[in-house]
Amino acid sequence: CAFASPPRRLLGVEAGPRALTLSAALTPPPPYVAVIFTNHKVVGDDTAYDITAARMLDLARSVDGFLGIESARDANGTGITVSYWRDHDAIAAWREHPEHLDAQSAGRSEWYAWYELRVATVERAESHRRP
Amino acid sequence: CAFASPPRRLLGVEAGPRALTLSAALTPPPPYVAVIFTNHKVVGDDTAYDITAARMLDLARSVDGFLGIESARDANGTGITVSYWRDHDAIAAWREHPEHLDAQSAGRSEWYAWYELRVATVERAESHRRP
Repeated sequence: CAFASPPRRLLGVEAGPRALTLSAALTPPPPYVAVIFTNHKVVGDDTAYDITAARMLDLARSVDGFLGIESARDANGTGITVSYWRDHDAIAAWREHPEHLDAQSAGRSEWYAWYELRVATVERAESHRRP
Repeated sequence: CAFASPPRRLLGVEAGPRALTLSAALTPPPPYVAVIFTNHKVVGDDTAYDITAARMLDLARSVDGFLGIESARDANGTGITVSYWRDHDAIAAWREHPEHLDAQSAGRSEWYAWYELRVATVERAESHRRP
């Protein structure tokens, strides 16, 4: 998964200086499956990374069973991206997409100092919106 | 869970200007349970928030069954904190800790414009460190 920190306009956010608001993923009632991707991005030219990340987000959205995505990155380079999927078959289809395999390879060799990737079944969920 | 974005020294990071590196959580082999807490923090005085977050992190670590935590916050205020636990009983003990209940209340009324809280069983995990 190399789609941490995609251009924010692709994540359904409000535009305008300092008014960016990343959306929460509007997932259905559980159960569904989460891919928790925690990573540390090395310092460098982000152009290729950003282009790839945007492309990966488009690709992920085209996979049957994609439910949503949430992402945040600290100024220090640590990022967490959580993507949500209908089931393990959907994740397998995404993981094995040829373009995504290329991006995963570049992620390991060029972009990430380290990552942790965890697949988990969501059993309970709650939302809060301030009145 | 109000312990998103605690002071970084508490998360086992390297000190020094611009050298902060948030650690990955060194979790045991699955299965274990993840609490995925995605939120948007309102703009305001962060002092009370930071003090509470640091205290919550100390408290969480004192709960039997706590395995680790990962956290990142975008400059725009969106944060994701994932904490890892041995089982659902450990999460219940943490969720119902009296001091944590107070912090949860302040989180809902003062600190978070919105949050999504998901509890998930981690079934598969992999790590990568760049050579």
